[in-house]
Amino acid sequence: MANRDTPLIRNAWYVAARSDEIGRKLFSRQYLGISTVLFRKEDGAPVALQNRCCHRSFPLSEGKLFGDVLECGYHGFRYNTSGRCIAVPSQDRPPHNIGVRAFPVIEKKPFIWIWPGDPDLADAALLPHQEYFDHPDWAVNIGFLNIKGSYVHLHENLLDLSHLSFLHDKTFGTPEYARAPLEATVEDEHFEVWRHVECVLPPIYSRPLGWENEKAMRSSGSLFVTPGLHVNTGILKNLDKPEKMEKLQPMVKVAQLITPETNTSTNYYYAQCRNFCIDDGEMGAFMLKANQAAFSEDVFAIEHINRMQDTDQTPDFYEVDVPADRPGVAMRRHLKKLADAEAAKS
Amino acid sequence: MANRDTPLIRNAWYVAARSDEIGRKLFSRQYLGISTVLFRKEDGAPVALQNRCCHRSFPLSEGKLFGDVLECGYHGFRYNTSGRCIAVPSQDRPPHNIGVRAFPVIEKKPFIWIWPGDPDLADAALLPHQEYFDHPDWAVNIGFLNIKGSYVHLHENLLDLSHLSFLHDKTFGTPEYARAPLEATVEDEHFEVWRHVECVLPPIYSRPLGWENEKAMRSSGSLFVTPGLHVNTGILKNLDKPEKMEKLQPMVKVAQLITPETNTSTNYYYAQCRNFCIDDGEMGAFMLKANQAAFSEDVFAIEHINRMQDTDQTPDFYEVDVPADRPGVAMRRHLKKLADAEAAKS
Amino acid sequence: MANRDTPLIRNAWYVAARSDEIGRKLFSRQYLGISTVLFRKEDGAPVALQNRCCHRSFPLSEGKLFGDVLECGYHGFRYNTSGRCIAVPSQDRPPHNIGVRAFPVIEKKPFIWIWPGDPDLADAALLPHQEYFDHPDWAVNIGFLNIKGSYVHLHENLLDLSHLSFLHDKTFGTPEYARAPLEATVEDEHFEVWRHVECVLPPIYSRPLGWENEKAMRSSGSLFVTPGLHVNTGILKNLDKPEKMEKLQPMVKVAQLITPETNTSTNYYYAQCRNFCIDDGEMGAFMLKANQAAFSEDVFAIEHINRMQDTDQTPDFYEVDVPADRPGVAMRRHLKKLADAEAAKS
Repeated sequence: MANRDTPLIRNAWYVAARSDEIGRKLFSRQYLGISTVLFRKEDGAPVALQNRCCHRSFPLSEGKLFGDVLECGYHGFRYNTSGRCIAVPSQDRPPHNIGVRAFPVIEKKPFIWIWPGDPDLADAALLPHQEYFDHPDWAVNIGFLNIKGSYVHLHENLLDLSHLSFLHDKTFGTPEYARAPLEATVEDEHFEVWRHVECVLPPIYSRPLGWENEKAMRSSGSLFVTPGLHVNTGILKNLDKPEKMEKLQPMVKVAQLITPETNTSTNYYYAQCRNFCIDDGEMGAFMLKANQAAFSEDVFAIEHINRMQDTDQTPDFYEVDVPADRPGVAMRRHLKKLADAEAAKS
Repeated sequence: MANRDTPLIRNAWYVAARSDEIGRKLFSRQYLGISTVLFRKEDGAPVALQNRCCHRSFPLSEGKLFGDVLECGYHGFRYNTSGRCIAVPSQDRPPHNIGVRAFPVIEKKPFIWIWPGDPDLADAALLPHQEYFDHPDWAVNIGFLNIKGSYVHLHENLLDLSHLSFLHDKTFGTPEYARAPLEATVEDEHFEVWRHVECVLPPIYSRPLGWENEKAMRSSGSLFVTPGLHVNTGILKNLDKPEKMEKLQPMVKVAQLITPETNTSTNYYYAQCRNFCIDDGEMGAFMLKANQAAFSEDVFAIEHINRMQDTDQTPDFYEVDVPADRPGVAMRRHLKKLADAEAAKS
Repeated sequence: MANRDTPLIRNAWYVAARSDEIGRKLFSRQYLGISTVLFRKEDGAPVALQNRCCHRSFPLSEGKLFGDVLECGYHGFRYNTSGRCIAVPSQDRPPHNIGVRAFPVIEKKPFIWIWPGDPDLADAALLPHQEYFDHPDWAVNIGFLNIKGSYVHLHENLLDLSHLSFLHDKTFGTPEYARAPLEATVEDEHFEVWRHVECVLPPIYSRPLGWENEKAMRSSGSLFVTPGLHVNTGILKNLDKPEKMEKLQPMVKVAQLITPETNTSTNYYYAQCRNFCIDDGEMGAFMLKANQAAFSEDVFAIEHINRMQDTDQTPDFYEVDVPADRPGVAMRRHLKKLADAEAAKS
């Protein structure tokens, strides 16, 4: 199954950045190991090009924009937004057929998505739909974390929330979580897990809902969507005072936007969407802060694991799987299969 | 002969930590490359377990103790002090026969010793005896240093004290040292060197003894005991005023407790034992400080050597040995033989 | 052609240091990967020895000088200025025929040159002559930079000054530069490029000459001399007021003294020589500062390129060459040929 050494899946949509991070100022970042420069054309459309000048490897992100033309800051090679080199200052006409890669991008606010693989396969229809991002009944908070560890471990983390009772015992976990029965769907490319936990909700939810110290049912779903997206859903029911739910079934959807930077580092955006307190900015800020604190614990875990893999020399070590890992293991086998298929094609 | 690339000797006792460093708070350290967690059971007995959870490689040292049970801080796997996994929260019964390694430990104050190799070979009788640690006629000071370099070079350093005249010329060396005749015992597993040097003692000894500016005979012995222990002995005789020795023959014993962290880093405890001024805490502190200053020079040398080995590209370089290296070279051949024997068995 | 992975050219003269950096205090530096110690003998002559003691790899630069004898700071091995070990304190006579390498050095103020290769091939006649260093009609400023990148990229940078219009647009470049026609000499071991640019000179020249806002002809020549030396020449003509040149044809010569530290790091001295304002120290300081600012931009570029080569994983990337690269590519082929020839001999 996939681990941090497995080749990354290039033919997939990944979040490149928040829409508001990309403008006329050159922005550079590694996607799946590829140094990339992003900017907006004069008409506002986002562009992503290979950042490494095809001439002498200088980063184009240190160059300058002239309209929609990107000029390298070393010898002045100029590229259009397709990546084609259209001018070399030391000669009258540019060489035929040289340039840098242009990566397909799609903007779907609040994010810009990138396809780091074969542009011919970049089908906009493959972009996962997140209906709650711009739905009037939902409010969205966006957070970001960089992880010095593999995206594989983040997907696995999100698919087995039994860790909430331990890693997150001081943030959004509760003790009953790990022992709650598990409903898993493990089929072909469908990896989904649900748990229903009777508990007093952690403050991240009980406070905005006004359900503090009241017994609730917390149903949590984890759904692997693509290598670049995982969606976690929370459905919250008040068991003590069901009347509090007359008007609305409170729900949380967290889109986990997972973009490998390299095999052992990951950019991790998340969009925390809620259908309650949607006009309460203060509560929204509280929920984002609580979420960031909890997800930072996941980063802590994944970075510790990465460091352990780097440095520990325990002889004959191998990881063991338990039944609760079945969905995660199946998902990791799927990632391995995707990687193998890409390797076979190239 | 052994060098920094030679596999480390696993079947031996090494000092893991000072007794007072290990308690109910989880303590983690690498021993021979193996990430290890140490703690005390409720009855006070020390325990050392493989720190890498057998499930997803999270460090157990980031978990929690419940009585004598260690719970992983990621998914709550629980281990007993034998390293056996006795509970997995997401299932009723733990899997059969999974767990982490438990390392044999022996506490012999002021240290806790660990056996990083095959537990079946961990014979307490092999633990070297340090009779002066808890002898009423001796006082003990303990120091610690971490070295970014190989333990092989530290053993060799301690077995050839001709470097006292150079590396330690400003601390506890004197100029006559390097030229003093050498009595070496090099037999099978016995590597011992003595030098008898007529000199004015350095302050580390002359000041507590009150022998400043008096001619003395300093007899220094170096004895390789095991890969984890080297003992240096100093016998000090006052030649000018022998009457000062009527009541006591002053001696110093330094147990050098050498524990490879990795092939190129070493944890280095030492116990400086003396049979004079044993009730004079101020003099003890002075001697420890002087000792730490001198041993820091050895760390300086070994780290410089390690850096040179890392970076220097002098073509066709090889180290030459001289007659004074005979004990060191024999000791390094012995370490190589031990490593080869372990490799042959595994 | 040569790149950062190509073996370095050992049989050549390289600048080791400024004359005034070497004295009776031991000075250490890597030349072509070889850790080296430099000092002056009592008679003032510079000496360069392998810095790694032949006994236990301790850096001799941490030792002490006794007259012309260098004593290792670890076990006191003593070396004469030929690198021969002449004393080992633990024995009466030194071993036969042990020692460290001595590297041929030549002092030609303001620099000391070193030959890191086969001493038998170190012909003083191969030392490139810099006639303007000690000419009464010229003044010299010396600067220094360390580059975390390959010396190959620095030579190539200096041979194609079309980058002046881009990388140096805020320092000593002007916009006309990149488009100016190029006169290239590419023959055997002769790699030279000239450009003649009509422009308003940048402040580095216009201010000391008093030609601000006056049209000038700037003729710039780049000449690869050896792997360790590149010479750039500027000939400046005032087109608006030719009378300002009646007494003197202003010229700048910059000797670029390029010494690989390792394959991916370079020590970079330069001597900026001018035949105007030679007694004006303030103007000299201004010109050196302006030069240092501009050359720091080259360091910026080369370090970015090195980092890109280290980290970027763009699939199937290769650099393309354009006609303006012809001299640089030929020079890099020459470096590769020199490296191959050295490899064939050893």
